Amino acid sequence: MSERGFASDNYAGALPEVVEAIAAANAGHAPAYGDDEWTARAEERFREHFGRDARAFLAFNGTGANVVALRALAQPWSAVICPETAHLNVDECGAPERVGGLKLLTVATPDGKLTPELVEPRLVRFGEEHAVQPGIVSISQASELGTVYSVDEVRALADQAHAHGLLLHVDGARLANAAAALDVPLRALTTDAGVDALSFGGTKNGLVIGEAVVLLRPDLGEGIAYLRKQSMQLASKMRFLAAQFEVLLQGDRWRHGAAHANAMAARLADAIAGTPGVRVTQRVEANAVFAVLPPRAAEQLQRRWRFYVWDDSTGEVRWMCSWDTTPEDVDGFAADIRSTVASAA
Amino acid sequence: MSERGFASDNYAGALPEVVEAIAAANAGHAPAYGDDEWTARAEERFREHFGRDARAFLAFNGTGANVVALRALAQPWSAVICPETAHLNVDECGAPERVGGLKLLTVATPDGKLTPELVEPRLVRFGEEHAVQPGIVSISQASELGTVYSVDEVRALADQAHAHGLLLHVDGARLANAAAALDVPLRALTTDAGVDALSFGGTKNGLVIGEAVVLLRPDLGEGIAYLRKQSMQLASKMRFLAAQFEVLLQGDRWRHGAAHANAMAARLADAIAGTPGVRVTQRVEANAVFAVLPPRAAEQLQRRWRFYVWDDSTGEVRWMCSWDTTPEDVDGFAADIRSTVASAA
Amino acid sequence: MSERGFASDNYAGALPEVVEAIAAANAGHAPAYGDDEWTARAEERFREHFGRDARAFLAFNGTGANVVALRALAQPWSAVICPETAHLNVDECGAPERVGGLKLLTVATPDGKLTPELVEPRLVRFGEEHAVQPGIVSISQASELGTVYSVDEVRALADQAHAHGLLLHVDGARLANAAAALDVPLRALTTDAGVDALSFGGTKNGLVIGEAVVLLRPDLGEGIAYLRKQSMQLASKMRFLAAQFEVLLQGDRWRHGAAHANAMAARLADAIAGTPGVRVTQRVEANAVFAVLPPRAAEQLQRRWRFYVWDDSTGEVRWMCSWDTTPEDVDGFAADIRSTVASAA
Amino acid sequence: MSERGFASDNYAGALPEVVEAIAAANAGHAPAYGDDEWTARAEERFREHFGRDARAFLAFNGTGANVVALRALAQPWSAVICPETAHLNVDECGAPERVGGLKLLTVATPDGKLTPELVEPRLVRFGEEHAVQPGIVSISQASELGTVYSVDEVRALADQAHAHGLLLHVDGARLANAAAALDVPLRALTTDAGVDALSFGGTKNGLVIGEAVVLLRPDLGEGIAYLRKQSMQLASKMRFLAAQFEVLLQGDRWRHGAAHANAMAARLADAIAGTPGVRVTQRVEANAVFAVLPPRAAEQLQRRWRFYVWDDSTGEVRWMCSWDTTPEDVDGFAADIRSTVASAA
Repeated sequence: MSERGFASDNYAGALPEVVEAIAAANAGHAPAYGDDEWTARAEERFREHFGRDARAFLAFNGTGANVVALRALAQPWSAVICPETAHLNVDECGAPERVGGLKLLTVATPDGKLTPELVEPRLVRFGEEHAVQPGIVSISQASELGTVYSVDEVRALADQAHAHGLLLHVDGARLANAAAALDVPLRALTTDAGVDALSFGGTKNGLVIGEAVVLLRPDLGEGIAYLRKQSMQLASKMRFLAAQFEVLLQGDRWRHGAAHANAMAARLADAIAGTPGVRVTQRVEANAVFAVLPPRAAEQLQRRWRFYVWDDSTGEVRWMCSWDTTPEDVDGFAADIRSTVASAA
Repeated sequence: MSERGFASDNYAGALPEVVEAIAAANAGHAPAYGDDEWTARAEERFREHFGRDARAFLAFNGTGANVVALRALAQPWSAVICPETAHLNVDECGAPERVGGLKLLTVATPDGKLTPELVEPRLVRFGEEHAVQPGIVSISQASELGTVYSVDEVRALADQAHAHGLLLHVDGARLANAAAALDVPLRALTTDAGVDALSFGGTKNGLVIGEAVVLLRPDLGEGIAYLRKQSMQLASKMRFLAAQFEVLLQGDRWRHGAAHANAMAARLADAIAGTPGVRVTQRVEANAVFAVLPPRAAEQLQRRWRFYVWDDSTGEVRWMCSWDTTPEDVDGFAADIRSTVASAA
Repeated sequence: MSERGFASDNYAGALPEVVEAIAAANAGHAPAYGDDEWTARAEERFREHFGRDARAFLAFNGTGANVVALRALAQPWSAVICPETAHLNVDECGAPERVGGLKLLTVATPDGKLTPELVEPRLVRFGEEHAVQPGIVSISQASELGTVYSVDEVRALADQAHAHGLLLHVDGARLANAAAALDVPLRALTTDAGVDALSFGGTKNGLVIGEAVVLLRPDLGEGIAYLRKQSMQLASKMRFLAAQFEVLLQGDRWRHGAAHANAMAARLADAIAGTPGVRVTQRVEANAVFAVLPPRAAEQLQRRWRFYVWDDSTGEVRWMCSWDTTPEDVDGFAADIRSTVASAA
Repeated sequence: MSERGFASDNYAGALPEVVEAIAAANAGHAPAYGDDEWTARAEERFREHFGRDARAFLAFNGTGANVVALRALAQPWSAVICPETAHLNVDECGAPERVGGLKLLTVATPDGKLTPELVEPRLVRFGEEHAVQPGIVSISQASELGTVYSVDEVRALADQAHAHGLLLHVDGARLANAAAALDVPLRALTTDAGVDALSFGGTKNGLVIGEAVVLLRPDLGEGIAYLRKQSMQLASKMRFLAAQFEVLLQGDRWRHGAAHANAMAARLADAIAGTPGVRVTQRVEANAVFAVLPPRAAEQLQRRWRFYVWDDSTGEVRWMCSWDTTPEDVDGFAADIRSTVASAA
């Protein structure tokens, strides 16, 4: 088994600068719970990237950031419209329902992305007391299938949501990958495209630990400080989360690792393109490659490389690249894929 | 305002070895969510300190660890008996109720500590469907008032709890301080004293971030892995939490900082003992000093030193010492207390 | 607008015997909360119909009965597999999620009925902490689309559920209609077919008010008395709920009204069969008729008759019959349908 | 054991007029869920008694009405200040916490009644994210100890609450008894005294089943229709709840039974006054008598009469009178008390 792999972008370590920032922040006493200078600077960085009205609330993990963000946007009778494949729906062990009390109205999608046409049938039963009321549209950017919403696609969803009195939330665990893929600033994909709030991913982008809820409109999120604490996402030694974000959001550092990860996924897709028996199933726009292999080929490869079978019924696999995936990793893996598939044929 | 202060033991930074351990863990790829070698080693360290049946589940913060631990011990109709002063009750923004769905049955105490006599009146209405059923006794060790339960005191509470079919939980955010104060191993105060489960504090003991839920009996905690994830306390890059615990729980390192913090609190209490107008209100057994000062003295001191007024109605203040509090910090502060109080007289 | 209609079987009143039973129960003092003779007799009636191990817990409404039943069967990390059309999913305003904390794993069905083949793809990810764990299969009998599971179909679902460690719950708001449709005893469709627990509908079957949670296996439902109270479904003057069930479950009284309602639906379906432009969309097995009409015909009919458009996008309508629907009601309505559709053509 | 007793006012049956109203409402079809003429008339009756802005939402039981009312007034981070003896706190099996997610801040009282002085210490920590935020003051009127707040006492609590941005909720399971005791209209004790919302008790006042949430200010209770449904308190055949309230709230009918119950409690207290060894422990202002008897006397009496020991530790007992308690009931019971106590001496 190779120590290196393609299982998840959270198998990677942290950026060296991030670890250095933690060490540098370990200097004497600092007020707890965010009343420190690192947090002030990190918050300012978020404003630089997301606009002057952006308010960032650091949190521990993606599930926590999503739940805090949704609780901040929701009424107790609100439902959240999201793709079936949303992390919210399939990988948070029911936290949105159990902790947030929220019902998810899931939508089947071909590529992990909502469209106004897909959302439309869920925009019904307003005012009926028997039904949860659609309150939030939540999209993942980049999606869990490695696809990316264009700025226009985000805006169309925002416009639709707002026209019906809903809010648009972005699960941005991989927002950096999406912005890198589109080569746009973070705010172009969010604040300027009509997004109301997002969960911003730090961990997959090279942090040791840390995510953020970012509210993009000044009138949203009453009580969010209480919600974060109550949702068990308030760090006491906050400076150590903040210092990581401070360095990640310095200039375009966040973009470098994401762009690299994207490039590695593209390299992998290119390297196996045309291989008989291998079918890439999703457009490779961010840092993921989804593919179907011949029977047993995946199993053989998994003896040497870590990755997940995404769909047991179809045998579809997922290969994730990260900020520290090397061209050598990709080339070695691609070569093994080709030879394994060839011998399986 | 002094950069150094006595506001909280989470104003301190992290042990240098802990930061080094994070850096050392930043080596290549590692499986996420705890399936890594650092986590395996940290879990083994917990078994060394708490016994072979101890199972540790790392978490992000104290509120999270408490809620996961209680959820793992509770039925949906269980109530938790705890002191009024419990962190659970006063400093978790209702997370036990909102996230855990648990009712707390609070007990007024003179010193932050439960006794069997204080618990007894809460052990009523078993079998009545109108009433939540007492299911868990939760104590904080050391308590939020800086007092410490002796081994015998813990055992008496455990025996009482078990005799009535309840479980004993310890909020051990400062368990290290208690064990240091009593000069006993961690398991003497917990596993061997009948405790069923605990929240073990890492952050106040010198970590950057990290707490742990530790189950001490093999038959407890069905589904705890789901509860941790659902309670939004599962770290993806777990190695970075685990590496900290690995080094903290190496031999007696956890004890050194705690013993030092305790010694600094004792030094502070000694230094102000006998000062006219200053009354220390709780026994100084761990790393906290509680005191009442003459009117306005606290306010004047707060211009130069960070600390909290604990009780606005009485003016009682709380001074916390940490692993990095120095004798010079204490002596300077004590001198200022004495002179401020003298001039206020 | 006709005072009579086909909007819902809960637009009907109550059986005269039921109202008389309430009056008869209004005699002097009786212990509250179910410790009365009426409740004892009603519980015995449930045992007569569902077997000696059946334990009935009376509740107020269907949503309440469903949530109590599911809470009694679930772990905090359990998910409930159910059809998309389940009342649970679409008509309980998120109570299963908000109050029960349960995630529903919904399955699209052509006819409102699950099959083992439809359930199979949901029986995945056992043991993965990131995912809610399938714990319960819930079916509605009769279904919300007026279709009925045969005894064999129920048994197949029960066997599948049990083989995977799940439990089978039946939302029996219209169980009487199903048993009448199949001409079998209640226990043949439930206890003897492997069902673990059910919500038994009283209101739609002719009560003033009242539903019941019925546990069918002796080892299930720990703490259900607490769960009922906590879920706000425990009546103080329980005798008035119990007296209704006592009379409804006396012999086959429950069956008469249900069989009549079914017959009226069949009469309606027959009366419009072959009408050009009218397409009945579901098999008429219980007391509902679903149909698609020509554009605007439904709207015109709704000026004179109360009924609901089931699906705005297709114009599909739902016509419900109840224990008090008369042949004259049906014939008059059918005649109006035919003439309205003819003139709309 | 006498069939008649003093255990609870919900051991009584229903007013004959209430049962007749149910029978009369059983006439043909009526729209479900409150869109019927009985509900419209009942709502109008509530406006007659509580003012033009009063909006009543019928519910099933007291726990349900309390939880819906509090959810309608609360934010997710709100806490509810209430007496330790509140039904909310001791007799709802944790529903406010588990279903409402609300933390109760309980206050010890001598007589079951809050005062501004008792509330004051709970009005702290506003704006601190670690603490639940006081949002609601909830009082029971009459209290669970049979005492009654005067209009001025209610107003003082309302003024205090509003001055701090809180709302005042009244658990009015026995509001009729309080209004009868004070001989004032219902609105004098509620709307005109500054109360924001209440739970209005029907069952203890002579209904078969039924309570109501009543919002008294037009700007309160956004989404309450969803909250009622989600809290499983929405009746389908609503007319049968409404018809009961319609007749109960016709003129002063609600007052007659309550005044009678109060008078019976006074008669009982008078009849045992001065009995050696019997000490009445609370002022008898509504329909309850609390007393301490000599050792074993209560036990002996309980062999012949149903009533509850309120406090096992002191032997205090509670005797409740209801609308159907007769002078003969009281006189017979009082005679037995006197002779039992005499023989126990």
